[in-house]
Amino acid sequence: MSLNGTGAGDGFLAVDSGGSGLRVVIGVPGRGTTAPRTSRVPVRTGPRGIDPGHLMEQLVPLVRALEPEAGVSRLGTAVVGAAGMATLGDALRAELPTALEREFGVRTVALVADAVTAYTGALGPRPGAVVAAGTGLVAIGTDLTSWRRADGWGHLLGDCGGGAWIGRAGLEAALRAHDGRPGGSAALLARAEESFGPVRELPGRLYPRADRPAVLASFAPRVADCAESDPVARGILREAARHMADSAAAVCPAEGQAHVSLTGGLFRMGAALLVPLEEELERRLPHARRVPAAGGPLDGSVQIATELAHNALDLPHDEAMLYVVTPKRG
Amino acid sequence: MSLNGTGAGDGFLAVDSGGSGLRVVIGVPGRGTTAPRTSRVPVRTGPRGIDPGHLMEQLVPLVRALEPEAGVSRLGTAVVGAAGMATLGDALRAELPTALEREFGVRTVALVADAVTAYTGALGPRPGAVVAAGTGLVAIGTDLTSWRRADGWGHLLGDCGGGAWIGRAGLEAALRAHDGRPGGSAALLARAEESFGPVRELPGRLYPRADRPAVLASFAPRVADCAESDPVARGILREAARHMADSAAAVCPAEGQAHVSLTGGLFRMGAALLVPLEEELERRLPHARRVPAAGGPLDGSVQIATELAHNALDLPHDEAMLYVVTPKRG
Repeated sequence: MSLNGTGAGDGFLAVDSGGSGLRVVIGVPGRGTTAPRTSRVPVRTGPRGIDPGHLMEQLVPLVRALEPEAGVSRLGTAVVGAAGMATLGDALRAELPTALEREFGVRTVALVADAVTAYTGALGPRPGAVVAAGTGLVAIGTDLTSWRRADGWGHLLGDCGGGAWIGRAGLEAALRAHDGRPGGSAALLARAEESFGPVRELPGRLYPRADRPAVLASFAPRVADCAESDPVARGILREAARHMADSAAAVCPAEGQAHVSLTGGLFRMGAALLVPLEEELERRLPHARRVPAAGGPLDGSVQIATELAHNALDLPHDEAMLYVVTPKRG
Repeated sequence: MSLNGTGAGDGFLAVDSGGSGLRVVIGVPGRGTTAPRTSRVPVRTGPRGIDPGHLMEQLVPLVRALEPEAGVSRLGTAVVGAAGMATLGDALRAELPTALEREFGVRTVALVADAVTAYTGALGPRPGAVVAAGTGLVAIGTDLTSWRRADGWGHLLGDCGGGAWIGRAGLEAALRAHDGRPGGSAALLARAEESFGPVRELPGRLYPRADRPAVLASFAPRVADCAESDPVARGILREAARHMADSAAAVCPAEGQAHVSLTGGLFRMGAALLVPLEEELERRLPHARRVPAAGGPLDGSVQIATELAHNALDLPHDEAMLYVVTPKRG
């Protein structure tokens, strides 16, 4: 148990629901949180969008397991950050507050786009822009009056510069080399055959899979590996950096103090991506101050829960991005 | 019945199997063919590639229905052109010749990549290059000694310049305009909302579908509609034309007489695509003579069947592209 002290405080529940499953903590404002409990099953998306029943199915046992170690008497506040909340969150907004009240007695609920929890985890309640990149890519910014969002449209419509985008571009360059078309890279062709076997078989291996974006993104680190010696790979990462800076610039407040931060697993690719990205951000957003991300999306959920428990949420409310349901005064 | 005359000639079976189903004719060399019979069910692709059992299931009733009107006593030759033959045709090559012999008494079988039937239908046994474009895109060329193929890798790995590629690029430009990122087009955004409703809902409409490439390709004509007045749309079609010319140049014989032809539904988009494409082909392949496609892939299957029946196939054999099984002498 990682909460300071014991006793019957009023706790909160903070959740991060993403492509690799759920992460949940219980905390008490000012006294920290438990260690996270995780479920590796991603919440299903059905015809009605993100499935609130499936989320609750996974959440209940995690919370029941956390309650004894948290030692709180009740959970007054719950913050659920979820991938797809903005576009696929209608059923969650309609049903989750009631379900959380019934199951845990929760009274104040915030349903938050994962981009907003990523922002809050990285920068907290400061104006600026955050680029969150893993398999996909989204930029989110705020002047503390409203949220702006750029990209995050998924691997077929955008996510320009994200892991699937970089991996896809790398594989396209490999196949150009195979075919003798311009823009090919023999180095990337060799890496592609190391990773996936003969390229003639690649379509048969990729298309039947349900996790195509993740398969594409798995090739992104190979593009970075080639960047030092291969101009095509270097060009792909430069273009990815340009797309990221375009998205950051589209959401960053143009005036006043602004902070820019990067968060998400893609940035573990290191200098091959970060060096061109710093250059492109400097060019596009010279007024913004670059700061390292303070934490991840679960930290963002915890921070929003803490502020809500104190009735002091400084971040803008927005039905799609940060939807807060408070108890009816009666 | 469209065969000239009647009687007990030695007939052939010609098949085109693609994304929209099967098309089948029976013919007699020198006497034409029946009208095509079609099945609207595309042949399944499973873990073993294209499923020979599913193809036969659909083929048998079509052939049984054609036989009376064709009035042939036996089917000596069968040519099956199929999408995916080169990469997903192992089970077909292993099982289809035996199945066709057992069911119809066929002795000579050719299993042909759809790119080769498209080539043959367009140019016949002449050296050159054919760009075949619909939802996808492949270029195929021959010097009559061997086949060369470029692109045709599907919507995530290539098919650069094809229908899904153009539609995807158009939707990306629409979403750039929505987000305020560079490279956006307000005209394409308006068309996207006309076609698909509010763009916030587009990911939820597109990603759950099994026919995502076709959905993307359905937007390609809207890009063409905007090209006259919108520079972003015009730029997308210019880049598509450049990709097509790159693929054509990668497969066209560099020396000697060469013909270049375009085939497939994408070219119905008209001048918005064809004008830049003619310019790019002229630039990349000045030595090649542009000729209109004589026919489609089913015509290519018929032509290969006719030549095989005459023991006079002038096109190069190739296990992946044009695989001919003839009766064992013994």
